[in-house]
Amino acid sequence: MKRRDFFKNTALTAIGAALLSPFETLARKSYRFSDNTSSAKNIIFMVSDGMSTGTLNMANLLLQRKEGRQSNWLALYEESRVSRALMDTASASSLITDSAAASSSWGGGKRVNNGSLNVNADGSFNKPILQKFKAAGKAVGCVTTVPITHATPAGFCINSDKRSDQPGIALMYHDLRFDVMMGGGTEFFSAEKRSDKQDLFKKYRSSGFSVLNNRDDLFNLAGNDNQPVIGVFHEDGLPYALDRSNSKTLVSATPSLAEMTKAAIERMKNNPKGFVLQVEGGKVDWAAHANDAGALIYDQIAFDDAIAEAIRFAEKDKETLVVITTDHGNANPGLFYGSKANENFDRIQHFKYTNDWILNRVNKTDSPASLVERIHFAQGYAITTEEAKQLLDHYQTRDGEGLYNPRKLPFKLLAQIQENHLSVGWGAMDHSADYVELAMFGPGSERLKPFVRNVELHNFLLETAGVPLS
Amino acid sequence: MKRRDFFKNTALTAIGAALLSPFETLARKSYRFSDNTSSAKNIIFMVSDGMSTGTLNMANLLLQRKEGRQSNWLALYEESRVSRALMDTASASSLITDSAAASSSWGGGKRVNNGSLNVNADGSFNKPILQKFKAAGKAVGCVTTVPITHATPAGFCINSDKRSDQPGIALMYHDLRFDVMMGGGTEFFSAEKRSDKQDLFKKYRSSGFSVLNNRDDLFNLAGNDNQPVIGVFHEDGLPYALDRSNSKTLVSATPSLAEMTKAAIERMKNNPKGFVLQVEGGKVDWAAHANDAGALIYDQIAFDDAIAEAIRFAEKDKETLVVITTDHGNANPGLFYGSKANENFDRIQHFKYTNDWILNRVNKTDSPASLVERIHFAQGYAITTEEAKQLLDHYQTRDGEGLYNPRKLPFKLLAQIQENHLSVGWGAMDHSADYVELAMFGPGSERLKPFVRNVELHNFLLETAGVPLS
Repeated sequence: MKRRDFFKNTALTAIGAALLSPFETLARKSYRFSDNTSSAKNIIFMVSDGMSTGTLNMANLLLQRKEGRQSNWLALYEESRVSRALMDTASASSLITDSAAASSSWGGGKRVNNGSLNVNADGSFNKPILQKFKAAGKAVGCVTTVPITHATPAGFCINSDKRSDQPGIALMYHDLRFDVMMGGGTEFFSAEKRSDKQDLFKKYRSSGFSVLNNRDDLFNLAGNDNQPVIGVFHEDGLPYALDRSNSKTLVSATPSLAEMTKAAIERMKNNPKGFVLQVEGGKVDWAAHANDAGALIYDQIAFDDAIAEAIRFAEKDKETLVVITTDHGNANPGLFYGSKANENFDRIQHFKYTNDWILNRVNKTDSPASLVERIHFAQGYAITTEEAKQLLDHYQTRDGEGLYNPRKLPFKLLAQIQENHLSVGWGAMDHSADYVELAMFGPGSERLKPFVRNVELHNFLLETAGVPLS
Repeated sequence: MKRRDFFKNTALTAIGAALLSPFETLARKSYRFSDNTSSAKNIIFMVSDGMSTGTLNMANLLLQRKEGRQSNWLALYEESRVSRALMDTASASSLITDSAAASSSWGGGKRVNNGSLNVNADGSFNKPILQKFKAAGKAVGCVTTVPITHATPAGFCINSDKRSDQPGIALMYHDLRFDVMMGGGTEFFSAEKRSDKQDLFKKYRSSGFSVLNNRDDLFNLAGNDNQPVIGVFHEDGLPYALDRSNSKTLVSATPSLAEMTKAAIERMKNNPKGFVLQVEGGKVDWAAHANDAGALIYDQIAFDDAIAEAIRFAEKDKETLVVITTDHGNANPGLFYGSKANENFDRIQHFKYTNDWILNRVNKTDSPASLVERIHFAQGYAITTEEAKQLLDHYQTRDGEGLYNPRKLPFKLLAQIQENHLSVGWGAMDHSADYVELAMFGPGSERLKPFVRNVELHNFLLETAGVPLS
């Protein structure tokens, strides 16, 4: 039997594809990049913030069972279109990084202490990578679902020893005049919310920026590509993808991550010296901090939709390296064994709203019965009256755990109650030291080793784009 | 600057190695296999049972901090010596497999229902892979740290619709006359413990087997390679590696997984048509079911020591494919964020004994103070008297959770108490649906795709070894 016939008749058909002759491979794979395989004109660096293995996995399982398809991320694997690595995500101060130190490792090429943005323990600065790329003539930008001043975009852009200084970072961005910066965080730009009462939107406009404040602004973005764009679409982080998808108001007011990604690429793609874009699914991390399964999985899928935009461009362009990864694990969720695990997991397909939506809507007029009803409306299963009472009791004590939970809502208790209904469990409400998934598509990806440290990517990216390391 | 000079002076030195010329690569990498890269004479298939990402990661972090080295598994990554994939581990009946269905997917090439060993829902059998390899003239065998009749070895060897029929499986092994079968499980072989009162050790001896019952037997194994070997070294599973390492009695009575692996390779390596060996770190799974951090990490390291034996042989042999993986995640442990996470994690370096050792030693004379003292002796930190009291209370109620916990000991409560001391958290006490890590070293490994389903490996292994699929 000839090799080709052999593979046709076995379960190895797919695996065997890797054995086809180079000509067959080229014919099938239109995404093959140019012969100069170690140099990329453009880079799209994509971060699903706080994505544990189980997050990637559950998003894929949900898409398989709901839509009969793989996620875009895993389809790239199945089709052997990427290089992969495990990445060590530690910071200078801990085996478990925060997002500021993680982004700084990529952005500044040095591990710094948690909480710091490209500032070393001795106070010295590491020059952020988008400043280097900008100086080399590339268009640069960031899009995210959390405030654009948040740690992950900031780690590519600025130096600050306090990630929490988001009002200050909003000012730094003004002076940088990067080509596209978009996300949430109105509170750090508006005169009403800033303690210094500066109206940064006015300031940006005066300096020649295009300022975008809603989805229509994004769609109507015109003008010349040399005019920098700042887009700030929501008070804090953008709405969770699940809640947004069930609210016409939110859909019309706020863009999706995929829409921002596409617009940013469009805006920068004609720059003669190329572009570098960071894309962050930032609320994946927030959902993990809240052990909020619906929020987590649907925001991971929204990130996956943005992957499709990046790959669609890179396939045609052939000079773009797409990096797809996360900065650290968070909460290590899993779909766990049990006789009803499949049907429990399938409930999530029919969710209308997140735990965040549910718990933020509880008010003084709620009874256990009304809360049972609201959860059933939002997520399609019935908790007990006793469980509803326990949840409501927490509104007296206000002792809820988890980051990004200023109202101290009982996210943890709700997640524990949900375990019986969803078979999804959580190891904690914070980041983990897990090595994480990293994939690369396009020119330069062939240089990726199977195991990397986050900090090694800084030089890797510069070198791949032919920009001096200094 | 020349490329070589460039890499010498940057953090990319290691990453850059992939760019060296083929000649340099060959000179540096003695493990390169023969030109016939798609055919392997021998296969060593290694399973760390129930290994979540965090398990692999924490074992590596512990070795880095305690011994200043990477695990053997991750060193293979760092040195770019393997192909890697994510593996989908589902069974026919669930998104979350048990070990029987998982091993059957590899062993029989079909997904079966949880609990079944190579028996389909309609009662039909799938021929186990070691029977196929044996028929092709290869020497075959399994070594494990759990009973040799347990699900993972059994899935490579036999058909049974009940994985729990370990006494029956012990009889089936007799008739198979495989070359090397070693692990625990005396209870399924001894006349006293078997309900049919058969003395299987006598039966195996009468049939010409070498029967091994302790570590010295293993070291003194002689005779001709055609004589089959059965080694049963302990009542149930073998002792946890951590407990064994601190007991001279256990060290002299029971071999390590690495020692069994080395002996099995030695026994089979001279077979003219090659050999196929399955190696299972089975108690990694048991430790995860018990949320027992010390047991988990040190048994993962014991598995890693067995990897060294396999790779050492395969490097020299150049005709051996080594597969290194797990059958499913379990409990999704993680080292989680906190100001003392590093120092908490470092406590595990100094552990003397597992939670299993601690909880099985509690007796009626214990007071909270004596339990506090025992835990401090075993693991080097002090729980509170109140926590000790809660643990002791459980010995009245006997409601402890987790598989492999016949005495219903309070493993879960102890793990929760430990979180403050170790910063290790757990998502559940059972298997997860996580996609898992898979690596291949040696001839055939270049055919591995980045994403595979467990069931695809059956034909992959046969084809790689040139054995007909039928």
